[in-house]
Amino acid sequence: MYKSKIIPLTFVLACSSSFASTDLVKKAKDNGMQAIPADKVALMKLIDDPKDPITDAKVELGKKLFFDPRLSRSGLISCNTCHNLAMGGDDGIPAAIGHKWTANPHHLNSPTVYNSVFFSAQFWDGRSPHLADQAQGPMQAPPEMAAPANLVKERIVSIPEYVSEFKTAYGSDVNITFPKIADTIATFEKTLVTPSKFDDFLNGDINALNDTEKKGLNIFIDKGCASCHNGIALGGTMQPFGLAAKYKFSEVGDFKGDDKGMVKTPTLRNITETGPYFHNGAVWSLTDAIKEMGSIQLGIKITDSEAEEMKIFLKALKGRKPAISYPQLPEESDTTPKPTFD
Amino acid sequence: MYKSKIIPLTFVLACSSSFASTDLVKKAKDNGMQAIPADKVALMKLIDDPKDPITDAKVELGKKLFFDPRLSRSGLISCNTCHNLAMGGDDGIPAAIGHKWTANPHHLNSPTVYNSVFFSAQFWDGRSPHLADQAQGPMQAPPEMAAPANLVKERIVSIPEYVSEFKTAYGSDVNITFPKIADTIATFEKTLVTPSKFDDFLNGDINALNDTEKKGLNIFIDKGCASCHNGIALGGTMQPFGLAAKYKFSEVGDFKGDDKGMVKTPTLRNITETGPYFHNGAVWSLTDAIKEMGSIQLGIKITDSEAEEMKIFLKALKGRKPAISYPQLPEESDTTPKPTFD
Repeated sequence: MYKSKIIPLTFVLACSSSFASTDLVKKAKDNGMQAIPADKVALMKLIDDPKDPITDAKVELGKKLFFDPRLSRSGLISCNTCHNLAMGGDDGIPAAIGHKWTANPHHLNSPTVYNSVFFSAQFWDGRSPHLADQAQGPMQAPPEMAAPANLVKERIVSIPEYVSEFKTAYGSDVNITFPKIADTIATFEKTLVTPSKFDDFLNGDINALNDTEKKGLNIFIDKGCASCHNGIALGGTMQPFGLAAKYKFSEVGDFKGDDKGMVKTPTLRNITETGPYFHNGAVWSLTDAIKEMGSIQLGIKITDSEAEEMKIFLKALKGRKPAISYPQLPEESDTTPKPTFD
Repeated sequence: MYKSKIIPLTFVLACSSSFASTDLVKKAKDNGMQAIPADKVALMKLIDDPKDPITDAKVELGKKLFFDPRLSRSGLISCNTCHNLAMGGDDGIPAAIGHKWTANPHHLNSPTVYNSVFFSAQFWDGRSPHLADQAQGPMQAPPEMAAPANLVKERIVSIPEYVSEFKTAYGSDVNITFPKIADTIATFEKTLVTPSKFDDFLNGDINALNDTEKKGLNIFIDKGCASCHNGIALGGTMQPFGLAAKYKFSEVGDFKGDDKGMVKTPTLRNITETGPYFHNGAVWSLTDAIKEMGSIQLGIKITDSEAEEMKIFLKALKGRKPAISYPQLPEESDTTPKPTFD
């Protein structure tokens, strides 16, 4: 008697879950959420530029440049210092700290470099259209790597192995300019894509998310979060900020967005690894961040339990990171400009 | 007629070179120079501690800790910041810079971590007997990582994945103390051994060094360099400094060695990657460093051409680095002590 009751119930639940999952995939997609393509060719179509195609030689060289602190004035700070690939692609501190221990003058938080190829704009104020342009900024910015473009170029062209690798990557007539160096870094960054269980789910594996993760996703959509956190990046577009209410920590730093007050929506991918949150890194708790977003962006009160349920979904956005062999950087020559600390 | 003259000459040269090489191996060994054993069991006998054996789990955990900037007060500085495994195991700047951009108060240069397991003493003044003891220093030193022992411990024990990895490495009853954390880092560091062409040569491959490299080695020994640069590390022991003449840059910084004026001899392995040279990093050119050593330690004048010849041998000490997959560091929890910047 007991057994006969149980079996049909399990059967009904399984059917209902499968049916609900298909619905939920559709609902997510209808709300603009997109998967990282599982198919490599489809992914390459999204991230590659036929005019400057991604090749192994460029990626390997770009990786070396990304990890090379000699791109900074002091020789101590690399791209990876603030966009640490071991730590979700950022630095884990509220506001970036760079050359001479200078904090970001606007108290801006370093965004993750993972999946940044999917952003429609770069920097918190979206002033840069793509990674190759973006990568030129921090190298030169006095509170970051503080290296004038010419110094970066001089360092690289003085290192014979780098020159040789640029020739391998781009041909023997390559002109190693500062923008070319930034381009190469960007080519490496384009490969920093982290597919997750959520992508597997959207791509058709309806068991990739468990029931609580699906429930969290459903709440996430119902609350309206996907109205900004959408696309492949689940963010990365310019959006108005603080429309419904004033951000609790708006006094930390002086950042007010672009000239229209728009702020780049952060990606939610790997969000559990990329705290503290918000443009000024003022919120450490993901639960608090979810609730604050409900209040200031959606004008709704998100309860603690709803936030916890959404958090379970957000954890499922932790992606599989590309394997990175730590590089051996080429030796400088006698003509390499020395580090300076002023 | 022409041909008949050439053949015997080549034959004689080959014999002489082979004979000379065997002699040179003997001469190097007689002068205390030692190879990194090619045999893994023999190597492990040298670096392993049966009371705390090297295991894959400890090495992998130690690698994560080595790369983790959260072991520093600010969350920005890892062991790898000053001992960069991509750059010969050091930072490539004259004197270490740490927390709050503080320069080493004695203007001391960061020594390489590669092959440091073979040193008889650690730190420039030799005050530490081994790596596990040494590793405790920079984490706590205010101008370096500036993290009190208890803060380091609190950070680690608040990160569930670290706790789990410590249990895997040491057993479920492991007591995660600050010294245990340093021990684990040291276990990883012990594996940072870089065999080179020179080792292949000493280990019996007499063609591993070419003739100019052999000539450089011969001069190196004849000049007396191996009287301090010996053992497997080709350095790493405490020696008197500046006996024959005063070091040209002795006024840079206030370091005077240990209480007997002894200074740890730097390893010559990977020397082309570990400039600038001397305890205070005041000499950028390896040629100048060789000549200065001749003057202050051996009381001899080394000519430019002799220095260049020795440099060819020193380049052959560039070792094969162990492959390192860049780690994914575990996420902190809500109880993880936050970074501080004061």
